[in-house]
Amino acid sequence: MRDRAQRAIAECKLIAGFTEEPGRTTRRFLTPPVRDVHAHLRDRMEALGMTVGVDAIGNLRGLWQPEGTDRMSETARKRLILGSHIDTVPNAGAYDGVLGVVLALEWVQIAREIAFPMPIEVIAFSEEEGVRYGVPFLGSRAVTGIFVEKMLADEDAEGIRMEDAIRAFGLDPAKIGEAAIDPAEVYGFVEMHIEQGPVLEAENLQLAVVDAIVGQTRLGLRFIGQANHAGTTPMHLRRDALAAAAEWITSVESAVRDAAAGDEPGLVATVGKIELKPNAGNVIPGTVDLSLDLRHDSNYARSQWANHLLADARRIAHQRGVEVESVVKMSERTTEMDRHLTARLASAVEDAGFPPKRLPSGAGHDAMVMAARWPATMLFLRSPGGISHHPDEAVREEDVEAALLVGRKFMEQLAAEVR
Amino acid sequence: MRDRAQRAIAECKLIAGFTEEPGRTTRRFLTPPVRDVHAHLRDRMEALGMTVGVDAIGNLRGLWQPEGTDRMSETARKRLILGSHIDTVPNAGAYDGVLGVVLALEWVQIAREIAFPMPIEVIAFSEEEGVRYGVPFLGSRAVTGIFVEKMLADEDAEGIRMEDAIRAFGLDPAKIGEAAIDPAEVYGFVEMHIEQGPVLEAENLQLAVVDAIVGQTRLGLRFIGQANHAGTTPMHLRRDALAAAAEWITSVESAVRDAAAGDEPGLVATVGKIELKPNAGNVIPGTVDLSLDLRHDSNYARSQWANHLLADARRIAHQRGVEVESVVKMSERTTEMDRHLTARLASAVEDAGFPPKRLPSGAGHDAMVMAARWPATMLFLRSPGGISHHPDEAVREEDVEAALLVGRKFMEQLAAEVR
Repeated sequence: MRDRAQRAIAECKLIAGFTEEPGRTTRRFLTPPVRDVHAHLRDRMEALGMTVGVDAIGNLRGLWQPEGTDRMSETARKRLILGSHIDTVPNAGAYDGVLGVVLALEWVQIAREIAFPMPIEVIAFSEEEGVRYGVPFLGSRAVTGIFVEKMLADEDAEGIRMEDAIRAFGLDPAKIGEAAIDPAEVYGFVEMHIEQGPVLEAENLQLAVVDAIVGQTRLGLRFIGQANHAGTTPMHLRRDALAAAAEWITSVESAVRDAAAGDEPGLVATVGKIELKPNAGNVIPGTVDLSLDLRHDSNYARSQWANHLLADARRIAHQRGVEVESVVKMSERTTEMDRHLTARLASAVEDAGFPPKRLPSGAGHDAMVMAARWPATMLFLRSPGGISHHPDEAVREEDVEAALLVGRKFMEQLAAEVR
Repeated sequence: MRDRAQRAIAECKLIAGFTEEPGRTTRRFLTPPVRDVHAHLRDRMEALGMTVGVDAIGNLRGLWQPEGTDRMSETARKRLILGSHIDTVPNAGAYDGVLGVVLALEWVQIAREIAFPMPIEVIAFSEEEGVRYGVPFLGSRAVTGIFVEKMLADEDAEGIRMEDAIRAFGLDPAKIGEAAIDPAEVYGFVEMHIEQGPVLEAENLQLAVVDAIVGQTRLGLRFIGQANHAGTTPMHLRRDALAAAAEWITSVESAVRDAAAGDEPGLVATVGKIELKPNAGNVIPGTVDLSLDLRHDSNYARSQWANHLLADARRIAHQRGVEVESVVKMSERTTEMDRHLTARLASAVEDAGFPPKRLPSGAGHDAMVMAARWPATMLFLRSPGGISHHPDEAVREEDVEAALLVGRKFMEQLAAEVR
């Protein structure tokens, strides 16, 4: 399988060359380089004997049918869906999304070799990152039938409406409804993806089975103190909004780090954005706006922690004569991966000779959308350095090979059951 | 004196109406409303029997001569200079600067009444805030002969060169050198100004004599961690530049507050500006740039504290696997006010019935520039709420009256000596 792993990596690198910007990989929803990706993948799919089409949201879809479909059991007539997305963030790496599509094609190659008895549909989702229209998962929304038509009127940064972008690509936005798959025809969805985090590397593991995509809360906080002259206002007469915010940021990090090491493994909290007013070196900050991103796979724990951290902000602000306001900008519940499909994937991982490590995903993925309609699960491949959304994003050959060995075991086990 | 205090306040409010922007007070260097201020003050000066002119940098200058100048002692032939500036920050209050000019004219009125034996020159400095050309103290630089000619080529935000702005006002930039006063002709400079801070109000005092304009150090610090995904990077594997910066900000505030309450009264430190990269809610901050403004009247203590706080930043960064870089952007030494002139002013304050409170100024003033050439000192008037550079900037009638009572005592004492 090592040569196939090498081929998969080479293919990701080749596809990274299809870009909007020379020298960097940037490939937003339905931009010109997407045509090149489609052309390349279509050739690959047709060489594998797949029937290929592009649906109205721009997903490239290839269907592989085993021979002798007429004698199939009811389960075996359902299709296994594999895939991931082919859009990227600006200045991306080569593997986020694309690797899942390329590996899906290698799984089809294996399916042919082991005479896998079920149809496999490989979907290269047209949009997952949400870069062009600010809304992610356009591809998987259409496939699951939850695409909202009024989004067609949204405009990108250049003022191009989504429906016009779709038409310009040669597709008919009126037909997006036809992209949806009937859940009765689906066995399940497996997405392979780089971890985009450092956990597997830190634990010296190659693969993980994703058991949930963790819920997240996004809060906006505003600390309101009193802007004043940095030279004439003594320390004890200040109401410094940044000093209050800094004390809180320090407290959040310390409390959440301790909790993650103890009773709440996996809990993460991030203050990633901060804006000061007036933001001048010689003026005490009067107002600080900041973001809190809080994630955990337990919805209950996440909600408790959001309350706890907000109470902490109020306590710190109160002690300083500073006010604090907060607003919930997002509260998304944890999406559990299908228990049976995940157990089946974990069993294949173990049979292939790897520890069946389970890991919740801290990032969103197409599998999260797919999970609402049919069983879905994910296989994570180790991310060297935990790096993603960056040209240094990488994947190791041995880990790609491992994912192929898992694919063979997974399909062999499934074939033995449905035959 | 109460009616004169009322008149002074009314005059400041009237002058606040001479503005570049309707509804807000904004009056930058040599903009059209400065002509209105000149016209108004010229009338006032001439009514007081003063000889009025505008020098080439746009300072309005009025000279009052006592009668019988020929019989004067050598000291009495030297002039007492009074004044402050008439430019403002954007959206300013009515008193920062202007009050010092208006009060100077009330002192001249008193000088006439008590037959003060020395000449008084009142200067309404054309520029102190540094808003239009990014360089402060243009007016007092010219009067002290330290105006740097190459600044004439500087451009404002609209691309207007300083020399062209000066010509457009009807002045000749080639004559700026003539604005300088020979130190041999100067007895000293007294500037009256609002405190722009909350100390007098907090101590329930009306006035303070300024004994120094404190030195300041401005540092730029950069904390360099690792930008990473907020959802997929566990707490213990992060190198969060903002968490490091927040811990340091908290540490700076706490250490400096304790020191100011103990061995280093008056020490202030401010982090007023902060910029994150990438500054996105779902990305762990990779880089944080921030400013530190540190002020104290002891140059030694200020330098020691700058070193101490930087060492603290390095310690915090090191513990977190974060790097820190720093650059000194400004290091300005403390300007001592003239000891004899300050003592004389303090004595007048006491004789007028007020506690002779001494206070270093945390902000820069024209007196700082003047102090390099001849004796200079300042009288601070309480700032209600410590507010300045804001439309809510205010001054109390009783405090303005106090400044007039001090003026009478100051001139009476001086007159008794030089006669």
